[in-house]
Amino acid sequence: MILVEPRYSGNIGLVARCMKNFGIKDLYLVKPCVINDDARRRAVHAQEIIDNAKIFNSFEEALKEIDYAVATSSITVENEKAFLRKAISLREFVNEIKDLKGKVGLIFGREDYGLFNHEIAECDALVTIPTSDRYRSLSLSHAVAIFLYEIFASSYSEERKERNIGYTEKKTMYRYFEEILDLIEYPSHKLERMKVVFRRVIGRAKLTIWEYHTLMGVMSEIVRRLKSR
Amino acid sequence: MILVEPRYSGNIGLVARCMKNFGIKDLYLVKPCVINDDARRRAVHAQEIIDNAKIFNSFEEALKEIDYAVATSSITVENEKAFLRKAISLREFVNEIKDLKGKVGLIFGREDYGLFNHEIAECDALVTIPTSDRYRSLSLSHAVAIFLYEIFASSYSEERKERNIGYTEKKTMYRYFEEILDLIEYPSHKLERMKVVFRRVIGRAKLTIWEYHTLMGVMSEIVRRLKSR
Repeated sequence: MILVEPRYSGNIGLVARCMKNFGIKDLYLVKPCVINDDARRRAVHAQEIIDNAKIFNSFEEALKEIDYAVATSSITVENEKAFLRKAISLREFVNEIKDLKGKVGLIFGREDYGLFNHEIAECDALVTIPTSDRYRSLSLSHAVAIFLYEIFASSYSEERKERNIGYTEKKTMYRYFEEILDLIEYPSHKLERMKVVFRRVIGRAKLTIWEYHTLMGVMSEIVRRLKSR
Repeated sequence: MILVEPRYSGNIGLVARCMKNFGIKDLYLVKPCVINDDARRRAVHAQEIIDNAKIFNSFEEALKEIDYAVATSSITVENEKAFLRKAISLREFVNEIKDLKGKVGLIFGREDYGLFNHEIAECDALVTIPTSDRYRSLSLSHAVAIFLYEIFASSYSEERKERNIGYTEKKTMYRYFEEILDLIEYPSHKLERMKVVFRRVIGRAKLTIWEYHTLMGVMSEIVRRLKSR
């Protein structure tokens, strides 16, 4: 993570906190403002990131530390001839770096002016976060948070530990439901439709095994009570 | 967007700015702190969102304004029996609401304590942002920024013919379900848990109005029969 000439110490703290939230360690600062208590306060539990931040006196010097430099900007253009400000979206970018080897540096510019054209020109890619056209400019630390989240979420495997109910459980559940319909003498001409509705609803709800057992407790008790009348 | 008891006025401004960045207009505040200049300064070009924010004196009152309530939390559990704090990831959530019609409320809790259990229990879904396990807690406005970005980036099509059930229909349905639990003398120590399971299942199923009426026909008949025993 490279911040170029950040002006507000508090922002450095907020960026440090986001970095820790998403497991990123190295913070490089190019000609930053003085880092005061505001930075430390806002970093909350990410003090070590501020302690270990490396300070550089020029943009070029910081670039030497990384293998793949990614400029970020909210000011981009659609025109494909304007090669310099032609950006890819954050999500496209994350897909592209999936199998990139080497040290990737995400570079964020000044709070007010962002990165200058000659800085963007030095980088390997220009990436932008899609936003409403009516207000493109995100706050620095929010842009950082979104970037790191997207990278983190894309590498995070969505494996759910819990099993959802399968064929057998669903069949049992439908059988109980049909028994209830029978016991309340549900009109036969509406019966098929009703069964389909129930199946669709249960299908969409994607019950866990535990939820299934919990609900079945209620259904079987309804059946028992209706029968004992 | 619903903020529950935000304590720092500046955060309200940061949230307003993020909302405008991603084209979201309605800000609801439940028992907020005093909104001072700090909020206005940080909102930058999103002053109108602060001007038009609605203030509520209770969480329940705010819930009445929306059809699908989404609680957010960084404190979640893996254990499937801990039904209340079992969350889906932001990306799963965005996939699931793709074809939801009706007003979705994203609910963010206090800066320090988040949402309380009884508040989470009232909601249709619980969503969390995946982060590093070493530091789960995102700053309020960063969590908001990430949420709105993910929804925006996944830019789901708003086309769906049928309306989903909203607040009133769900309340009615829950009332009938609770009446059934009462009539079958469902064990009182398991009652709260059962109610939450039912809400989550119905929340995930995203019933259409028609499905709702169909299922209510069965539920009201179950109630009538159980009562006439």
